[in-house]
Amino acid sequence: MQLYRTGMVQKELDPTCTTHCQRSVAEAYTFDVQYFRTHCSLKPLFPTKKETQMTTYKLIYFDTRGLAETARYMFALAGVEYEDHRIKNEEWPQVKKDYPLGVLPVLEVDGEQIPQSSAINHFLASEFGLLGSSNLETAKINVVYEVLVDSLNEAMKVDFADPKIKEQLKTKFYDDILETHSKFLVEILEKNNGGNGFFVGDKITLADISFLAVRRDMLAYIDKDDRLHRHPKLQALADRIAAVPQIAEWIKNRPPV
Amino acid sequence: MQLYRTGMVQKELDPTCTTHCQRSVAEAYTFDVQYFRTHCSLKPLFPTKKETQMTTYKLIYFDTRGLAETARYMFALAGVEYEDHRIKNEEWPQVKKDYPLGVLPVLEVDGEQIPQSSAINHFLASEFGLLGSSNLETAKINVVYEVLVDSLNEAMKVDFADPKIKEQLKTKFYDDILETHSKFLVEILEKNNGGNGFFVGDKITLADISFLAVRRDMLAYIDKDDRLHRHPKLQALADRIAAVPQIAEWIKNRPPV
Repeated sequence: MQLYRTGMVQKELDPTCTTHCQRSVAEAYTFDVQYFRTHCSLKPLFPTKKETQMTTYKLIYFDTRGLAETARYMFALAGVEYEDHRIKNEEWPQVKKDYPLGVLPVLEVDGEQIPQSSAINHFLASEFGLLGSSNLETAKINVVYEVLVDSLNEAMKVDFADPKIKEQLKTKFYDDILETHSKFLVEILEKNNGGNGFFVGDKITLADISFLAVRRDMLAYIDKDDRLHRHPKLQALADRIAAVPQIAEWIKNRPPV
Repeated sequence: MQLYRTGMVQKELDPTCTTHCQRSVAEAYTFDVQYFRTHCSLKPLFPTKKETQMTTYKLIYFDTRGLAETARYMFALAGVEYEDHRIKNEEWPQVKKDYPLGVLPVLEVDGEQIPQSSAINHFLASEFGLLGSSNLETAKINVVYEVLVDSLNEAMKVDFADPKIKEQLKTKFYDDILETHSKFLVEILEKNNGGNGFFVGDKITLADISFLAVRRDMLAYIDKDDRLHRHPKLQALADRIAAVPQIAEWIKNRPPV
């Protein structure tokens, strides 16, 4: 039996884990307890106070997918428990003052409040190892993420537009803006494993997860046809991410909105 | 003489560096070469191919501060050389097709193009050690960063508004939106060292730098009075960051726009 030190607690080597526990001690120093807890089956040999007190996560949002669904997918993928706290629209005026800037989503980490969906998504992606393995990989993931944010911002403009010009703006959004974004995303995807893997590297990252949440969940509310069919590689990626067992299970069991 | 391994190259211990080189070997594994090159005076003992070939950075933007100034401040602070490539408005139609999505800024890292200002800023902040020392610190930095992005997006709406309602929107922006954001930022600042240090932790981070770039450089174009004077702690922070010697030197010598 080998002992294994992560920098915080000592662990036994997990013979079932071929990706993390089999690494050298030098590499182990870059892993933290949360990462091991999420990915490996071992319990700590000499648990510290921190280790015996699990981090508690509470995700607060309205009773819809929207800006919280990327985070919910990451919790599902990592197999980490959290409270999916959904506020009804009629409750909101009473509780709005309890949240920073009066906006949602907010993630509470051991009671500490993190607002801003991008800050929340990057925090969870860091915690769960979904931000790539180098600064340059993280940058590529962020490029995809930010293009999706741009798509959303443009979609919002359509959504809030004067009804008289809404249809015209919607057509421009789908045929012009979203097409430009889609072609750019296809290009990034195809540079990596011929477009048959993930956006960046050889495993799922925040880029793929936010792609599913934004393109399939969020933009669908503007138009039932999400236009991914125009780009078979993007459609196949969405199908592939949605079929990852933990994500497929969340999709099957999540609330209907 | 002690040898010191960073995970990529072996270095001698630098007796003049009390913050990084004096750390334990275990901690050293979390540092990378760029961090050492930026912060310590040592050259590598056995330089690798990567180490002998300096990373080249080229920052491409229009001939103005705007969305590129946060990156320029970071280059100045880190003392890292880069090409500050400025495209004149009249050149842009000819070269637009050379850049991803036809937008700027773009950062070229050894020739590889990174678009999207947030991806660029986070990449450089990672490279230069300006993203905090834990995932939770990074999250807090990102919260400040995202609030500043929100300020900018709201300012853009004012800038592009119909001239008939522009003054009215500007008043709402300064008295309502920016006031709400400012109070939130003061709250975060005051929780850390009574508001007399930085937004997060005990050294300058991306949060402080982007605050200077957005609040003092960018929002000034809408109104010469940047309204920071309503919040002495924020004004003092802007003054403090602008007085950091490397940043002060950049401000003194940078192009007039």
